[in-house]
Amino acid sequence: MIGGGTGAFMGYVHRIAARLDGNYELVAGALSSRPDVAQSSGRALGLADDRIYSDFTEMARAESTRPDGVEVVAIVTPNHMHVAPARAFLQAGIHVICDKPLAGSLAEAEELAAVTPANGARFLLTHTYTGYPLVRLARDMVARGDLGTIRMVQVEYAQDWLTVETPDEQAGTAWRADPAKSGGGGAIADIGTHAYNLARFVSGLQLHSLSADLDSFVPGRRVDDNAHIMLRFQGGAKGMLWASQVAVGNENSIRLRVFGDKASLDWQHTQPNELTFTRFGEARQIITRNGAGSNGMGRIPSGHPEGYLEAFATLYDDFAAVIRTGADRPLPTLADGVEGMRFITSALASAQNDARWQPLV
Amino acid sequence: MIGGGTGAFMGYVHRIAARLDGNYELVAGALSSRPDVAQSSGRALGLADDRIYSDFTEMARAESTRPDGVEVVAIVTPNHMHVAPARAFLQAGIHVICDKPLAGSLAEAEELAAVTPANGARFLLTHTYTGYPLVRLARDMVARGDLGTIRMVQVEYAQDWLTVETPDEQAGTAWRADPAKSGGGGAIADIGTHAYNLARFVSGLQLHSLSADLDSFVPGRRVDDNAHIMLRFQGGAKGMLWASQVAVGNENSIRLRVFGDKASLDWQHTQPNELTFTRFGEARQIITRNGAGSNGMGRIPSGHPEGYLEAFATLYDDFAAVIRTGADRPLPTLADGVEGMRFITSALASAQNDARWQPLV
Amino acid sequence: MIGGGTGAFMGYVHRIAARLDGNYELVAGALSSRPDVAQSSGRALGLADDRIYSDFTEMARAESTRPDGVEVVAIVTPNHMHVAPARAFLQAGIHVICDKPLAGSLAEAEELAAVTPANGARFLLTHTYTGYPLVRLARDMVARGDLGTIRMVQVEYAQDWLTVETPDEQAGTAWRADPAKSGGGGAIADIGTHAYNLARFVSGLQLHSLSADLDSFVPGRRVDDNAHIMLRFQGGAKGMLWASQVAVGNENSIRLRVFGDKASLDWQHTQPNELTFTRFGEARQIITRNGAGSNGMGRIPSGHPEGYLEAFATLYDDFAAVIRTGADRPLPTLADGVEGMRFITSALASAQNDARWQPLV
Amino acid sequence: MIGGGTGAFMGYVHRIAARLDGNYELVAGALSSRPDVAQSSGRALGLADDRIYSDFTEMARAESTRPDGVEVVAIVTPNHMHVAPARAFLQAGIHVICDKPLAGSLAEAEELAAVTPANGARFLLTHTYTGYPLVRLARDMVARGDLGTIRMVQVEYAQDWLTVETPDEQAGTAWRADPAKSGGGGAIADIGTHAYNLARFVSGLQLHSLSADLDSFVPGRRVDDNAHIMLRFQGGAKGMLWASQVAVGNENSIRLRVFGDKASLDWQHTQPNELTFTRFGEARQIITRNGAGSNGMGRIPSGHPEGYLEAFATLYDDFAAVIRTGADRPLPTLADGVEGMRFITSALASAQNDARWQPLV
Repeated sequence: MIGGGTGAFMGYVHRIAARLDGNYELVAGALSSRPDVAQSSGRALGLADDRIYSDFTEMARAESTRPDGVEVVAIVTPNHMHVAPARAFLQAGIHVICDKPLAGSLAEAEELAAVTPANGARFLLTHTYTGYPLVRLARDMVARGDLGTIRMVQVEYAQDWLTVETPDEQAGTAWRADPAKSGGGGAIADIGTHAYNLARFVSGLQLHSLSADLDSFVPGRRVDDNAHIMLRFQGGAKGMLWASQVAVGNENSIRLRVFGDKASLDWQHTQPNELTFTRFGEARQIITRNGAGSNGMGRIPSGHPEGYLEAFATLYDDFAAVIRTGADRPLPTLADGVEGMRFITSALASAQNDARWQPLV
Repeated sequence: MIGGGTGAFMGYVHRIAARLDGNYELVAGALSSRPDVAQSSGRALGLADDRIYSDFTEMARAESTRPDGVEVVAIVTPNHMHVAPARAFLQAGIHVICDKPLAGSLAEAEELAAVTPANGARFLLTHTYTGYPLVRLARDMVARGDLGTIRMVQVEYAQDWLTVETPDEQAGTAWRADPAKSGGGGAIADIGTHAYNLARFVSGLQLHSLSADLDSFVPGRRVDDNAHIMLRFQGGAKGMLWASQVAVGNENSIRLRVFGDKASLDWQHTQPNELTFTRFGEARQIITRNGAGSNGMGRIPSGHPEGYLEAFATLYDDFAAVIRTGADRPLPTLADGVEGMRFITSALASAQNDARWQPLV
Repeated sequence: MIGGGTGAFMGYVHRIAARLDGNYELVAGALSSRPDVAQSSGRALGLADDRIYSDFTEMARAESTRPDGVEVVAIVTPNHMHVAPARAFLQAGIHVICDKPLAGSLAEAEELAAVTPANGARFLLTHTYTGYPLVRLARDMVARGDLGTIRMVQVEYAQDWLTVETPDEQAGTAWRADPAKSGGGGAIADIGTHAYNLARFVSGLQLHSLSADLDSFVPGRRVDDNAHIMLRFQGGAKGMLWASQVAVGNENSIRLRVFGDKASLDWQHTQPNELTFTRFGEARQIITRNGAGSNGMGRIPSGHPEGYLEAFATLYDDFAAVIRTGADRPLPTLADGVEGMRFITSALASAQNDARWQPLV
Repeated sequence: MIGGGTGAFMGYVHRIAARLDGNYELVAGALSSRPDVAQSSGRALGLADDRIYSDFTEMARAESTRPDGVEVVAIVTPNHMHVAPARAFLQAGIHVICDKPLAGSLAEAEELAAVTPANGARFLLTHTYTGYPLVRLARDMVARGDLGTIRMVQVEYAQDWLTVETPDEQAGTAWRADPAKSGGGGAIADIGTHAYNLARFVSGLQLHSLSADLDSFVPGRRVDDNAHIMLRFQGGAKGMLWASQVAVGNENSIRLRVFGDKASLDWQHTQPNELTFTRFGEARQIITRNGAGSNGMGRIPSGHPEGYLEAFATLYDDFAAVIRTGADRPLPTLADGVEGMRFITSALASAQNDARWQPLV
């Protein structure tokens, strides 16, 4: 991992995501360019001392030559610091997983695209929303013609956390608020690219041209915090894209609607387990993750919403804390298990006794 | 792990849950009582040969005596096979994580409760729903008096997967459908106990007595598939509990509503990221996981619904498949990253040019 | 109209309902048993002096003998005062529209049922919810077998307006809170009968027996304010009914779910324009009033929710106030119309000019 | 009424709206310019022969001179036929209620605006959505500063009824599809003006300029059926407006979101009884019509959704049909009333008898 030292949100998310299915093990990292932070972060994550780096170039060189070197690297640095390490690792023949947007500028991005990776190294850009089972189903439905010819795409990504100036903006330490580091934009780079990618991913359409209106509503802000964009796709479809970080009442409300001449789709992040599908002239259908009409994708059966695994993991995590530190956590115990059996037994008894009130046995 | 051999759903879920936060490593298991299945399942999960068992008694003995023996065991066998291994491991001083309901009968459950664990071994019953951040918030809100005195509790858990006779019922291999193995009930044991536990967990109320009506709507079924129960709690609160596995249109719809004399709460599993809270005489409030008014619990910031980590992990998992097997997966690539930069650059250009249509650069 | 004098809610609602489709004209009434109130209320409603009564017996006699006598009477008095006027008018050959529940006791109700109406006079009980287009569709769908054999019915009616003692309870003037006047119950008479009727209306099932738990949660209240009831229907279907007037956060939340062995229905009053229909093993469908899959019932096309007519009427009503009294109301004017034309013209101009910003013409 | 002859939808709606609150009586009309249709339509509506006109000029003259002449006229003709009768009646001193958009062109609209009405005659444009109680509350909340300074307005009006060519388009008889008659636009005139008016009504903002992209997705259609518009308001607020008649899955989905620097509002026509209000940094609130936090507006108490009156009226209307024609309608009868009393009595009995099953008395 490059970046993602102690306290960094995206590094933490990447590590959980890597662990969940058991395919990855974190063994090396340049978690910070400051040697002391790199050391302390690496140790906290259990890395061996000789695999803690503070220079990603050195790490790419060392890891690509040792026999047990890393197969994949995850880059979770700020936007303008994606390209250099990505280039180094691709050239060293190590697969790259990288946060979006790709770069701090288009020129940088094109440079990276021109690199020839060694050993067929691959590149993954983490547009997270493409990983939702129903987003993939939506893409499949468009591709197989369920919607007919696509006419319009409405996509929006609304947040409100930048409604007022943030402490790190005031302190001048917010790289997202610095046009040179964020990729040339604010909301449009941070979340507009997610919305754009989602629209492209599902609709399969290629953008022809756009007409845009960007604003910085908060005084003193140097990048846009609200973007209104009209879209024209190749082939004649049209669209609207709204990205905002000052839309009070929205947390991470990304929503996509695609309309064809035969049917339409509607997916929103606030309820990611449902996809609305409507054929012209028929009743609206709600397709659930792994439910009827879906693609059977997902780790667990239908009806357990996304998040079930996280709730389950919370029990495991809390129990680890109880065991290790004697922490007090509200966990179901043996006594709850016995009481559950009392409940079952009581219910059977009352049911067999004319529904009379049965005290808990 | 005890049980959970190849193909078993709950074993798979337990393993993901254990892995997610990085606190557990699977090193030993009696994954099946059939030696051949135990062997093949254990190897598939990467267990060392000397830590693959087919007899949990042997495993408890061996693991408790070796210096690197397991600290915790997860029991994911059918209900009537929980108690014997749980007893063995608790007596061997190994912590136990166990599926619900606790046992095949109340008598068995009480026997287990009478066991004195060695070395202070602890016991966790996996009532999953208590792990949702907003369920814990609900419990806290009741406990601190936000609802006033509790008057009514409405809880329901509706599924529809047993609407018709299942293939394993027809084949006679469904342990859930056998009263002797399921814990004496069908829907009431399988999901009724979840509903009951959730009501107890959040309300903090103790059950006084109940009045029940149980049915088996599907011809030939030997356990209940629908339960209607009225509840009386100590102190005067009342409740209703509905558990059904023949409620067409429901996947895993567990919902809890708690009404006090000052306010009420409403949480449902189909939208686990929202908790509705209403003070008498005020507008309804929607509290989101980690949002305003919540308990700040959760691995990630507000607005990323439960499931965001799973979507993220899907990208990692797919990328592993691409790398290892060259599989074809719809993943965002470097080209998408470059296009994202083109999008940003085009938007900035149009915005600065009177909103004229700007072809994608 | 009998009852419904100045200030009475149900009389006001009945009058609007009668007027809406243009089939009724209010020409006579015994709006109060107090002559002065009857007079002032009648005059306020434009009744001729000789058709204002304070005694319903006299009214039944007089109206049934005059050539232009009323065809229909609406009885909107408290529950225990329904039967006497209903009997009088039926015996006088005048059709009766009557509020629910029918009577203050079962005996009274049966007496009324034994009356032989003159001239084939008919009787309508205003269980309002049976008038919703989608409730009627639900009934039709059950009747034609879309759900298969009905197994379970879940019905609830939750309100919160009696969460605390009301002023008229404190003053002792609340007829609903007096068992002798309300029909023997509180919540069960006032709203439980609505829930029961709705379940019966849609499911077509006959009740066999019930098991009930009634409470008065508010100290000093003499009738139930919360009812939990388990239902057994003839033929084997089961149900639960919850009626509450102390369910904080609910206004008039009546909801019905019906489950068959082939499909299920879900309708709720908080969103009366949608009916959820799910066939076993298929995606959930949302049927809208007058939309695809509906019965084509409703005064206006699909998509205008119930309430569109009321919004439209509000414009008319406000405009009448502006005209008559010069009242200040926020109504769209000629200037808004001109501006609307400016908007259209501007949009056409920008669209034809490369999306350049077009000042409002 | 001008226009609105037999079969015309808007005339029918206007007549119900006029009747609902009892302030209007229909006494005269030029319901069609074809004398025979005017006659038959007028008679069907109960107009006296001498007040049935086929020429609105003649009607304006005659009605303004007779002592019992109409006070108000409702104009429900196609868009391009609004201005001439409106002018005639305003000049005759008769108040005018007129459908939107105001005219077939901006020039026409301005001509009308230049007319000096006689006797202070007033003009109402029926932008229906401004009549919803919660839309008016939204306007009040903005006006009193609850949202702070407005930053963005998102408004959309989506329908799907023009997804394919309609029969009257094919026949060439669709005035809405003829640019000369519709007001110069298709979707933008028919529903875009509603969206625009709603945004203006609630936000109070004045439009500065716009950037538009209009389409006709259906081959052969001569007016737009989809409009994407970016908005700039005076003072710096921005907005997006989407109006579509080819958005599959939408019936009359008008939705408005307004974002200020302190709070936001969200109202949608598919659930007109709820207004979402969120203060920055606080939990989302759901304000219901006439509920806590609302303006107390509405004919009936909170919780009865808009549409309750229509359901109630349906019972009255059906009963009239039963009485007049012996029609068969599914209405609650005396027997239902008696059964309701049996239900209450049975519930009281079971509750007093340990919840034993009580057969229906």
